[in-house]
Amino acid sequence: MKLQFLSNKKAKQSSNENRISEEEVTIRVSKEVQVQLDLIHFNKKDLVLVKGLQPLIEENIESIVDQFYKNLEFNSGLKAIINDHSSVERLKVTLKRHIQEMFNGVIDELFIKQRVTIAITHVRIGLQPKWYMCAFQDLLESIIDIIDEYYEDRDESLAAIKAVSKILNFEQQLVLEAYENETDRII
Amino acid sequence: MKLQFLSNKKAKQSSNENRISEEEVTIRVSKEVQVQLDLIHFNKKDLVLVKGLQPLIEENIESIVDQFYKNLEFNSGLKAIINDHSSVERLKVTLKRHIQEMFNGVIDELFIKQRVTIAITHVRIGLQPKWYMCAFQDLLESIIDIIDEYYEDRDESLAAIKAVSKILNFEQQLVLEAYENETDRII
Ligand code: HEM
Ligand code: HEM
Repeated sequence: MKLQFLSNKKAKQSSNENRISEEEVTIRVSKEVQVQLDLIHFNKKDLVLVKGLQPLIEENIESIVDQFYKNLEFNSGLKAIINDHSSVERLKVTLKRHIQEMFNGVIDELFIKQRVTIAITHVRIGLQPKWYMCAFQDLLESIIDIIDEYYEDRDESLAAIKAVSKILNFEQQLVLEAYENETDRII
Repeated sequence: MKLQFLSNKKAKQSSNENRISEEEVTIRVSKEVQVQLDLIHFNKKDLVLVKGLQPLIEENIESIVDQFYKNLEFNSGLKAIINDHSSVERLKVTLKRHIQEMFNGVIDELFIKQRVTIAITHVRIGLQPKWYMCAFQDLLESIIDIIDEYYEDRDESLAAIKAVSKILNFEQQLVLEAYENETDRII
């Protein structure tokens, strides 16, 4: 396990403790995007599970983000890109906000637009899609470890893990489409 | 659960039954690719877990592949691409082989080259990366459900799920790099 948890003991809890209802989450997207969500079987039930994770993510956000940038330092090219355009300290702030918003329980035009804008930023700094994908995997693994640490019930844990893997996959779809469009535009 | 399992009852088993050793798996890649694997924390232990899944995947390959193409039919554009260039029946044969090879326990130049060639095939038929990503997610979910169905031990199940999510992420990296290179070449 790479993440440092706040407590050393396993502190498994039931996700029942912060049960969210379907009325508290929103999916409002175009027909095309709905097909994307249908293909990955992402529905309101998943979004409920994602939003239910929000307190846990907030509690562990420092470790997630620390792990994220520590990991990127394995690759000197990525380190150079970061230092040329920004700094780890500044990026930690924006990444924290970004990850927390992912667990807001809202997928709508604004959510999508924000993600596309961020993807375009990465096209401009010359980040190759493969490194982007690596970063998503690292993020997924951090979140899986947190879910496993805190969720008592095996089925609930797995359902939450699947929901997170789907919302991250959806973000990857948005990123890749932005890369395609932006690369066409630049050329 | 979308997959039809061979037996209706839960038939959980311990992965100990087909324990593989690190000598039976191979990672032989360039320095650059090794960095990609390092960033997603994919090591020989993961490959051992992946190879340990091979019998289970073989046993359930029909359901995985059926689910894969049934899912694509939600999108009439994708259905049209398939029928223009091939047929579901023919693709089922190649996809079966492809998935089974993923669990061979070997990541080397040949493994990578084959995957890049297949990715290039998809660039040529005009498949947008976002649909490719959706298909990977569907595949991941099918395999997660199989692991959950068969693995008794929670920790072993989760370790196997993480290993599979990593090897699928690695394949996505290869695919996206091929898309980038191939698109540059075509333009
Ligand atoms: C899961 C993958 C990633 C996510 C979610 C993510 C998220 C973000 C966010 C939210 C921003 C702020 C954008 C803004 O200010 O509007 C940003 C900027 C940035 N990211 Fe990432 N990032 C990811 C991967 C990477 C990787 C792998 C690198 C490696 C070089 C990287 C380097 C940067 C840099 C240099 C900026 C600043 C760009 C600028 O302001 O000119 N990111 N990222
Ligand atoms: C996880 C994602 C996918 C995998 C692993 C995969 C795998 C494969 C493989 C192994 C082949 C055979 C290549 C060869 O004969 O050399 C193939 C061909 C093909 N795939 Fe996929 N595929 C994926 C996604 C898709 C999707 C989403 C579509 C939707 C249209 C698609 C449509 C096709 C077509 C039409 C061909 C035949 C191309 C031709 O022979 O001209 N694939 N795919």
